[in-house]
Amino acid sequence: MYVILAYDVAVERNGRVLKTARRYLTWVQNSLLEGELSPAQLRRLQHELERAIDPQSDSVQIYVLPQASAARRVCLGVVKNEPSQFV
Amino acid sequence: MYVILAYDVAVERNGRVLKTARRYLTWVQNSLLEGELSPAQLRRLQHELERAIDPQSDSVQIYVLPQASAARRVCLGVVKNEPSQFV
Repeated sequence: MYVILAYDVAVERNGRVLKTARRYLTWVQNSLLEGELSPAQLRRLQHELERAIDPQSDSVQIYVLPQASAARRVCLGVVKNEPSQFV
Repeated sequence: MYVILAYDVAVERNGRVLKTARRYLTWVQNSLLEGELSPAQLRRLQHELERAIDPQSDSVQIYVLPQASAARRVCLGVVKNEPSQFV
């Protein structure tokens, strides 16, 4: 599965959420990561993120695609980091 | 086409980029918008965003899916705004 993750969390939790997500996914730009995950890895990532955020005020959106090619990607401006998956 | 847009732009351009994107897409959380667009609408949005950003330092990632159902969405924490597309 290909995963796109975007987070909107309070500054004091930003570091922990980013550190957690980076153990599974590739950083693309601020608050956005991507990568190939197995269902088990996704479940573990979700579980760790749920412990890292404040569910009353933080928000994490995870988009799960069957494979990277299910989405066409358009980049405007500078590419801060290029995950290898997209052709 | 279903579009997911994430932006990472300097603070001074944040307002203009958000205002531009909101004319086409639904705000989901900070720096993230989604919505159904025709190819012509996507081209216009791209063109307007290219005029709003600094291509040397700002970054906009646009993921284009054939339809919303091409991605499964997982939300952790609070849902700041719920685009109607995802079941």
